[in-house]
Amino acid sequence: MSTTAMTIVGVDVGGTNIEVGAVDPDHHVLDRAKAATPETGPEDVIATIVDLVRSLDASPTAIGVGIPGVIHEGHALTVPNLIGWTENVDLIGPLTKQLGVPVTLGNDANVGLLGEWVAGAAHGGKNILGLWMGTGVGGGLILDGRPYTGTRGAAGEIGHVIVQAGGALCTCGRRGCAEAYAGRRSMRGVATAMVDAGWKTSLFDIRDDEHKTKLTSKVWAHALDGKDPLAVKLFDTAIETLGVALGSTNNLLDLDRVVVGGGLAEKLGQDLADRLHTAAEPWMLQPSPDLQFVVSTLQDDAGVVGAAALARAALINP
Amino acid sequence: MSTTAMTIVGVDVGGTNIEVGAVDPDHHVLDRAKAATPETGPEDVIATIVDLVRSLDASPTAIGVGIPGVIHEGHALTVPNLIGWTENVDLIGPLTKQLGVPVTLGNDANVGLLGEWVAGAAHGGKNILGLWMGTGVGGGLILDGRPYTGTRGAAGEIGHVIVQAGGALCTCGRRGCAEAYAGRRSMRGVATAMVDAGWKTSLFDIRDDEHKTKLTSKVWAHALDGKDPLAVKLFDTAIETLGVALGSTNNLLDLDRVVVGGGLAEKLGQDLADRLHTAAEPWMLQPSPDLQFVVSTLQDDAGVVGAAALARAALINP
Repeated sequence: MSTTAMTIVGVDVGGTNIEVGAVDPDHHVLDRAKAATPETGPEDVIATIVDLVRSLDASPTAIGVGIPGVIHEGHALTVPNLIGWTENVDLIGPLTKQLGVPVTLGNDANVGLLGEWVAGAAHGGKNILGLWMGTGVGGGLILDGRPYTGTRGAAGEIGHVIVQAGGALCTCGRRGCAEAYAGRRSMRGVATAMVDAGWKTSLFDIRDDEHKTKLTSKVWAHALDGKDPLAVKLFDTAIETLGVALGSTNNLLDLDRVVVGGGLAEKLGQDLADRLHTAAEPWMLQPSPDLQFVVSTLQDDAGVVGAAALARAALINP
Repeated sequence: MSTTAMTIVGVDVGGTNIEVGAVDPDHHVLDRAKAATPETGPEDVIATIVDLVRSLDASPTAIGVGIPGVIHEGHALTVPNLIGWTENVDLIGPLTKQLGVPVTLGNDANVGLLGEWVAGAAHGGKNILGLWMGTGVGGGLILDGRPYTGTRGAAGEIGHVIVQAGGALCTCGRRGCAEAYAGRRSMRGVATAMVDAGWKTSLFDIRDDEHKTKLTSKVWAHALDGKDPLAVKLFDTAIETLGVALGSTNNLLDLDRVVVGGGLAEKLGQDLADRLHTAAEPWMLQPSPDLQFVVSTLQDDAGVVGAAALARAALINP
């Protein structure tokens, strides 16, 4: 079989963009393409994926797709971050029909960790948590040397490990989840309230200067770099809270590695992983000499590489 | 090979008693013996295990031992609940030498869940948490159809999942662990303080009537049965708190079964499992139709049966 025949396309469907890449058996991205995620429902998302895949200089053997939802038996059960998606969408049927190759579906956080595992910062680990700091706080698991997705594909939700039962209201509707303190969406809500109450911050000016509508990772990194006191206070709270959730997770799972990804990891680098390690350690029953905290090395490519690896694994072991 | 030749002895070393049982390949306990756990260090514990095993009507092929500590590469790293144990005790060497058969060591909570998995309430499950309510709150995991013990054998510590960061002081020294609210040792501490503050309760009278020195499961069950208001308040707090820890655990692991064991499970039965399920559900991101809460069916035998199963697995796959 030629190398070309073994090229697999990985598709990373995010809330903002869809990225696709032709990935070789050594997990290198040979060609890539990108488009804005349609906000008009699954049919248009599927059409965009098909166009992007066809635009690549590749004849893929298979296609892997990571999407921000719960994947159970090949169906997307819930996709909370994509506008216009209802429950139980069949992506595999239409994509297979239009692209003529096998399609495998996975959750974006799990797929991102898989990418880091085959070719990045998780490589060589056995019991790994992937922690993705973004709009929300996502996670994926590799346990005993195998991706672990749980009974219905919903495992890894470290953002909804409760750190303070009855505490801050989370966007999931529960009170006290880690994400309520450490997700960028929640942090922006608190920042807005504090500015209303008279606090000064450069966060919103930086946002405007960057022509953004949200407090992106870049905006946060810039404000933290300038030692903006409100940004520092909110970020310290996020780190402290994630430390508690990571402590609980390690007491349950006795990990050997935590891989930290997402926009902030890209901007802040290993310092972010080190700060999380320091914050988690006091909560660990057995601080372990085997436990490493590292940042993502594939960054934006983790989703595409992981989606391709998922499809490759499905070809070998369908 | 005769059935007799396939008999394995399981040893369950607890803080109070050591129990041993000759277990056949169908996980039935054929003969059993029991003695108080020596409080004079590992050597006397080893001598007691040897005496108990020799007293059985069995010629075991192998011996499995569950002890309340962290087991890493066959050694007991820490054994907090046994008096006179220092770190890194070699149990396998002396036991193998004196008993002349292979000895396998495991953590008591993991071993108990293994017993329930091969022959009890966990049977047929794939992603399982064993929750043991006792002096402390212990736990074990089976994930993707295999026992999961983590990188250094320390996984499963649901008692040290943090439910309220900075909350009640736990006997582990951290603040806000589930065990600080739901372990019998901590609950007795709070009960004592409340009685000092003028609260009335039958708990300590029942303890004296039963000629116990501690608030045992039997004492708690009796007081709850009599609707003692302080006992009810403390127990409600324990259930609520464990609900939070179970919610966090399920958000991470997307389980299909929770098995509840320990003395209280034996006394209160399925009602305890149902109450924990009700308490956990509000904290779950994806309440799952596949998730069952059940009580231990092997009860006191879980440790012995599980220890034998552990040794049996080691014979097959050393």
